[in-house]
Amino acid sequence: MAKVLGLVVEYNPFHYGHLHHLRESIRLANPDYVIAVMSGNFCQRGEPAIVNKFARTRIALMNGIDLVLELPTIYAIQDAGGFALGSIGVLHKSGVVTDIVFGSESGDIDFLKKVASLLIYQTPEFQQAFKTQLKKGYSYPNARKFALMDVLSDEVSKLSKSNDILGIEYVKSLLHYNSSITPNVIRRIGADDNDPEFKGKLSSASAIRRVIKLGDFEMTKDAIPDSTYEILKEEFQTGRGPVFWESLEFVLALFRKLKREDFEKIYSFNEGLDLRFYESARSSGDLQQFVELVKAKRFTYSRIRRAILHVLFDMEKEKIEKCNELGPQYLRVLGFNSKGREILKEIKKKSEIPIISTASLYKQVLEEAEKQNKEGKREWKIDSELFIWQFEKDILASDLYTFLYPNKSLRNAGMDFEQPVMML
Amino acid sequence: MAKVLGLVVEYNPFHYGHLHHLRESIRLANPDYVIAVMSGNFCQRGEPAIVNKFARTRIALMNGIDLVLELPTIYAIQDAGGFALGSIGVLHKSGVVTDIVFGSESGDIDFLKKVASLLIYQTPEFQQAFKTQLKKGYSYPNARKFALMDVLSDEVSKLSKSNDILGIEYVKSLLHYNSSITPNVIRRIGADDNDPEFKGKLSSASAIRRVIKLGDFEMTKDAIPDSTYEILKEEFQTGRGPVFWESLEFVLALFRKLKREDFEKIYSFNEGLDLRFYESARSSGDLQQFVELVKAKRFTYSRIRRAILHVLFDMEKEKIEKCNELGPQYLRVLGFNSKGREILKEIKKKSEIPIISTASLYKQVLEEAEKQNKEGKREWKIDSELFIWQFEKDILASDLYTFLYPNKSLRNAGMDFEQPVMML
Repeated sequence: MAKVLGLVVEYNPFHYGHLHHLRESIRLANPDYVIAVMSGNFCQRGEPAIVNKFARTRIALMNGIDLVLELPTIYAIQDAGGFALGSIGVLHKSGVVTDIVFGSESGDIDFLKKVASLLIYQTPEFQQAFKTQLKKGYSYPNARKFALMDVLSDEVSKLSKSNDILGIEYVKSLLHYNSSITPNVIRRIGADDNDPEFKGKLSSASAIRRVIKLGDFEMTKDAIPDSTYEILKEEFQTGRGPVFWESLEFVLALFRKLKREDFEKIYSFNEGLDLRFYESARSSGDLQQFVELVKAKRFTYSRIRRAILHVLFDMEKEKIEKCNELGPQYLRVLGFNSKGREILKEIKKKSEIPIISTASLYKQVLEEAEKQNKEGKREWKIDSELFIWQFEKDILASDLYTFLYPNKSLRNAGMDFEQPVMML
Repeated sequence: MAKVLGLVVEYNPFHYGHLHHLRESIRLANPDYVIAVMSGNFCQRGEPAIVNKFARTRIALMNGIDLVLELPTIYAIQDAGGFALGSIGVLHKSGVVTDIVFGSESGDIDFLKKVASLLIYQTPEFQQAFKTQLKKGYSYPNARKFALMDVLSDEVSKLSKSNDILGIEYVKSLLHYNSSITPNVIRRIGADDNDPEFKGKLSSASAIRRVIKLGDFEMTKDAIPDSTYEILKEEFQTGRGPVFWESLEFVLALFRKLKREDFEKIYSFNEGLDLRFYESARSSGDLQQFVELVKAKRFTYSRIRRAILHVLFDMEKEKIEKCNELGPQYLRVLGFNSKGREILKEIKKKSEIPIISTASLYKQVLEEAEKQNKEGKREWKIDSELFIWQFEKDILASDLYTFLYPNKSLRNAGMDFEQPVMML
C-alpha cells in the first residue's frame, strides 16, 4: 500500500516556513504522495485569504504538494476543534492517507496523545477543573488550557503554544473518526504564527500579510519562494488581491438588520456574544471599532472575527453541531499534479465521501452517490442535506470573497463554476 | 374651522424653487396653518437624502412650515402611486387639513381630477388601451401615460410632465380615502425636478445635489436660502453628510446571499425584475454597473433604485399591498413651531391615527390606542401589526442611513430614539 502523507494547511500565503515544514514532513514520513487539505477563501483567523484558493493551490502544487483538497468553509472558519474535525475529516475520509505530520512546539507526540485522550474521555477530575476555570471568566480555550495545567501539573510547560494546542485537536479528531492514520510531529522552528514582526526568511504569514497591507509587497520577496512571489504579483496586478479583512466592513450594515435573537441562532454565539454583537453593531461604523467594542476577556480577536463570518454565512448552531459530528461530506478537488492524478484514482476507489472535481456538477455527484447507496454498489457515508448545505456555503464564500477584490470589474460571482481545477 | 394647508415635500435639499412654491401655495390657500408631510431619510428617487430628516425638518421650519410630519419610509420609497397614498394618507388622517396645493405643469385641476377619476373608475376603453401599451414593452408608468393619451386624445399634451402625473396620483389618493380635502394646483415655474443643469436660483434639487457631489458646495449658495446653506454646512462639517446613493454599494454583497425566489417576495419585483436583480448582482461589483445591467425599457432608473431599497428594507409584497390599502398607521412628528404646537393639539383631537412624538414610546402609543378603542373612548383606525411594521421600517431606515455618514464616528444607530422632535 502506498504511503500517503496528509498535511493541513492554509498557505496564506505560502512562505519559507511552510516550505521547511513540507520538506521536513516528507523527510520524516517518506511518502509516495502528499495531499494537502487547505482552507478555501476564508481562513481560521476569521479573515478572507490574501489571495483566492485557486492561486494558493497553484503555489502549493509548485512547491511539492501533489493534490490539494478544499477544507469546507464551515470548518475552515471554526475554532481549533472544528477546524481539526474538518481537516482531519477530509484526510481520513479520503481513505488513502496513512500519515499526518504537524508542527509542534513540544515535539512530543506521546504527550499530545495523552492530552487528547484526556479531553476525549474526560475524567471527572478534568471536568471539575475546567468548570472552575470557566467560572473565573476565561475564554473556552484558555479555561481548557488552565484546567489541563491543573491536571497535568508537572508537564504544563508543554501546553503553552498554539501549535501544540492545535495538534491536540488533530489527535482528538483522529480519535473521533476512529482513524488509523498515524500522527507525527516535527518541532516547529522559525516564526510563531502570530508573530507580527517581519523577519525575512523567518517571517510568519501574518507578518507577510501586514507588510503587503502596508504597501511594501517587494519587501516580502525575502520571506516567500519565487513561485509565491510571482503568483501573488500576478494576482495583485490584475486586482484579485490583496484581499484584507477590513473590506468586510459592510457586515455592520447587515448586522443592523438583525435582532439579538437572530445572532443567538448562529454557531459560536454563546456566553453573551449575541448581545455584544447586537449592541456593538449599533454603536460602530467601523469594523475595527466594532471588534474592540465586542472584545472581552473571554472573546479573543480571532473568535470575534470568526463569529462575524458565522453570521455572514448564516452558520446555524444545529447545522454546525451536526457537521462537527458527521464531518465533511465531500472531497473538493482544487488542484493536482501528475502524481496527484494517480492518488485521486485511488481515492475514487477508497473514499467514504464523494469527490467533487467540477463544482457545477455537485448535485449530480450527490445524486449518483445516493443511487449507488440505494443499489448497494457502494457505501457512501453521506448526509444529503449536509452535503448540499456545506457545499453551498463554499460557493457563497467564494461569491462574497470576489466581492472584496480591489478591481471592481472582476468582482463577479461564480468563481467555483468558472475556474477549472488547477493542474500542474 | 381653521384653514390648514397640507404640502407633500422632500426638501432634498430645500431650495428657492421650494420657497417659491411654499409662498405661492400660502397666497393661494391663505391658510391659518401649514403642515408638511416629508420623506424621511430615504426619498422617492430611491436614494438616501443628502442630509438626515431632522436637519431637513429644521430647514423647513425656518422657511415657514408650522409642522413637519414624516412620510413613513415604506411609502416614501414607492412609485408615484404609493408615495401619494402615503403622503395624502398622512394629511387626510390628521383630520385637520382642508387644502392641499401641488405644482402642476398644466395648472388645470379639473383635467387632473378627470384623469384621476378615469384611473380610479377604469373604463373598459382605458383598460384595453393600457394592456396594449404594456404589451409594447413600455414601463408601467409609461404604458399608463400612453393609454391615457389614447383615451384623452385631444388633451394629451397636458399629460407629459412628471408633476401632473404625481398630481393625478394625489387626486386619486384623495378619492381612495374619500377625503374632503380640496386639491389646488399652482403652475410650476423654474427647474424641472430632473433637470441636472445648475441654473443658480432656478436649479433643481438634483442639480444642487450633483454640484455638492462634485465637491462644489459653495456654488450652491446661489440656489438655496441661507438657512439651507447654514444647516447643510453644519451637517457636512460634522460629517453627517452629504450622503450619496453610491454609499449603498454594500447591498450587492447582501444580494449575493439571496436566491431569485427571495427577490420575488419583495414589492415591485415583477415583470422579471427578480431575475435581473439576481443575475446582475452576481455580475457586478459596482452599484452603478449593477443598475446599468438591470436597466431595461420597462425598468426606469428610479424604479431600480427604489427596488434596491425594497430589498434592503425587506418590503414584502403582501405587507405593502395592505399598507397601500389601509394607509399610514401613525403621524410621526419631526418638528414644529409655536403655531405647529397649536395645530398639533387640534390633530390630537381629530386624527384617525395616533401621534408619535417620542419615537421610543411607539409601542406604548399603540397600546394606549388599542385600549381606547376597546373601552370605546375613541375610534382609532389602526391595524396594530401594520403600525409596528411601518414604524420599525422607519427605525431601520434611520439605522442604515447613519451607517452612510461620511464621519465613521457618528455612524451609530438609534437616531430616532436619541434625536428629540425639532422645535423652533
